[in-house]
Amino acid sequence: MFQECLNNVRIRVPLVHNITNYVTVNDVANVLLACGGSPIMSDDEGDVEEITSICGGLNINIGTLNKNTIPSMYLAGRKANELGHPVLLDPVGAGASTLRTQTALGLMKELKLTAIRGNISEIKTLAFGSGSTKGVDADVADAVTEETLDASVAFVKSFAKQTGAIVAVTGAIDLVSDGERCFCIRNGRPEMGRITGTGCQLSGLMTAYLVANPELRLEAAAAAVCLMGLAGEIAYEKLLPGEGNSTYRNRIIDAIYCMDAETLAQGAKYEIR
Amino acid sequence: MFQECLNNVRIRVPLVHNITNYVTVNDVANVLLACGGSPIMSDDEGDVEEITSICGGLNINIGTLNKNTIPSMYLAGRKANELGHPVLLDPVGAGASTLRTQTALGLMKELKLTAIRGNISEIKTLAFGSGSTKGVDADVADAVTEETLDASVAFVKSFAKQTGAIVAVTGAIDLVSDGERCFCIRNGRPEMGRITGTGCQLSGLMTAYLVANPELRLEAAAAAVCLMGLAGEIAYEKLLPGEGNSTYRNRIIDAIYCMDAETLAQGAKYEIR
Amino acid sequence: MFQECLNNVRIRVPLVHNITNYVTVNDVANVLLACGGSPIMSDDEGDVEEITSICGGLNINIGTLNKNTIPSMYLAGRKANELGHPVLLDPVGAGASTLRTQTALGLMKELKLTAIRGNISEIKTLAFGSGSTKGVDADVADAVTEETLDASVAFVKSFAKQTGAIVAVTGAIDLVSDGERCFCIRNGRPEMGRITGTGCQLSGLMTAYLVANPELRLEAAAAAVCLMGLAGEIAYEKLLPGEGNSTYRNRIIDAIYCMDAETLAQGAKYEIR
Repeated sequence: MFQECLNNVRIRVPLVHNITNYVTVNDVANVLLACGGSPIMSDDEGDVEEITSICGGLNINIGTLNKNTIPSMYLAGRKANELGHPVLLDPVGAGASTLRTQTALGLMKELKLTAIRGNISEIKTLAFGSGSTKGVDADVADAVTEETLDASVAFVKSFAKQTGAIVAVTGAIDLVSDGERCFCIRNGRPEMGRITGTGCQLSGLMTAYLVANPELRLEAAAAAVCLMGLAGEIAYEKLLPGEGNSTYRNRIIDAIYCMDAETLAQGAKYEIR
Repeated sequence: MFQECLNNVRIRVPLVHNITNYVTVNDVANVLLACGGSPIMSDDEGDVEEITSICGGLNINIGTLNKNTIPSMYLAGRKANELGHPVLLDPVGAGASTLRTQTALGLMKELKLTAIRGNISEIKTLAFGSGSTKGVDADVADAVTEETLDASVAFVKSFAKQTGAIVAVTGAIDLVSDGERCFCIRNGRPEMGRITGTGCQLSGLMTAYLVANPELRLEAAAAAVCLMGLAGEIAYEKLLPGEGNSTYRNRIIDAIYCMDAETLAQGAKYEIR
Repeated sequence: MFQECLNNVRIRVPLVHNITNYVTVNDVANVLLACGGSPIMSDDEGDVEEITSICGGLNINIGTLNKNTIPSMYLAGRKANELGHPVLLDPVGAGASTLRTQTALGLMKELKLTAIRGNISEIKTLAFGSGSTKGVDADVADAVTEETLDASVAFVKSFAKQTGAIVAVTGAIDLVSDGERCFCIRNGRPEMGRITGTGCQLSGLMTAYLVANPELRLEAAAAAVCLMGLAGEIAYEKLLPGEGNSTYRNRIIDAIYCMDAETLAQGAKYEIR
């Protein structure tokens, strides 16, 4: 199943329109190319509708949102909805400021989202209109761990059902649900949190997987999460003494580039609840 | 000849003003430093004229153009023209949206361009006002290959003559013409297309080469194309199992940094038609 | 002392708000994570006050300033001042254009700056309202060298006293002064100038050090300078034949990531004048 998802991305070369932050945009582009997709970035109101029209899907990331790009997110999102393209929202920093929270909530309300991917703090903010965000990292007290897993799965399923979107909460354990089933994924390494933008990269990757796998959306989203985490594991094993987060970043993207379907299928660690 | 071009860049340290996209800007800066030049980025209307005045040349890349940066491209371009500085246009995504096509055409009309560098789809759009662009990659049906080489050379020569600019079309075979002669270049690796921004990097590099070689502009543009492709070949040979596009990107920039005039002269693969 | 500074960063995980240029922003974020801090980027007028409020300090870098981000720098700076957070200014390109010079001078006048970090050309521009800047690099004639050290120390002390800020001038010899004492630092490698953004990275790093060390601000600023330079030395020793500025960039960030207090204390090369 994950094998099929990966192969579909390699064969179909999904073109993904990204309205994303300028911090991690280069890595997002290289991850999209690494997984077998193709990226295009465009965030001007006068450009986004046409650009999203020639793409297969849209990745909206509010990491460095501003008064010029917010209207572009709505315009591109509506056009993608019209065309039936998958739309993913990455609500970076929702809960950390009113503008971020309101923008994420507004996009949720206005658009038909295919998927929402964030950390637990951001997703809780979207669900409850509150929540505390320390920067772009999940609040430790609200982490998804073995202890909090049952309640977290119930929350994610419920929020997915409510929104009609696939909800992906990433953290120590990653949860991906469509409201009925929930993938609980145990791939990844804590050191990935010491690289900027692994979440943004995953959002780009997940959009490509959603575009290339219209019949298997939940599985595709889960496959993307497993792939990112597994790449983090493979890259970690190759780190030499004296290497740190910069080389680790490069090796993770390399591992996505080199990933084959069999390695993904064998390395994916998940259960379905 | 290419040796002289490379040495002139190393000796003269051309300062290049870049109005470029935020996706690949960091790589463009590092490539400019690697080749022996010096980059400065500035894209505000209130800043670009003074900045371009202290530089030796201007690299305009429309990859993430917006309503604030488009006027800056015109302002900087006019000032560079006034001062006799080389101006290069990289029409990223021309053909993919009306805004991109119109902006590229407008800049061509308004400015005296020293060089235009893009893929065949973008250049055809500028020449014919149409053409299909899949994202930022060349349309495969319109690729420059051995089969289409004669017609492509004729097209590039004709477009160079018409515009008065050096036209560089990069792809499987790269073509660089001033309207009279056309360099057909067979350096490079197809895997370079799996890295974001190798085209943007080349545009930065080419601008530095044009600035440092005022008496040898066509040769300088061709040398930059050969250098980029040769760096891609050298870097590819060093790739280890498990390495992918992220490490490949780093090694290409490293190879540009380490390139000497003799290696370039010996490794350049071209014919002049 | 430097050991304590480094340990405080690792333990306190300072959250740094960055309004910075899009050229080097990804490296700034990864350096902040490497040193033990946590980055957040936000530059919209509607977002910056809340974001800076949840952070511990603010890093203002004018490298790609524009009409939208300049007001955000003032807003965020005033809010950070209100809250007593450290504010660092990196006046990239001051002296190269009126907009850059005026913005840097305006921020100096309007805000209570904790630290100002730039090259000698930029700092002279702030001090004298003039000075020539070639791009973002220090004017060679005005470099801080053994020959010019006495006069440079006197200048930096005087400017620090005048502004009430810690002034850090980086170059062949780095100077860090609070107006009373001046650290003269001889860490680093000239090859670091062939990487884009090592100055920007240092400004991010220094802000994290200032936030985590409220009782030891001058020492913290000097420790950050020594750390960056020492990382450049460690990374340089590991460079293999054929490696260039891209790999060097990665290895420097890796060296920051792996730095421990003892290595810093032993490797720091400074005298206090």
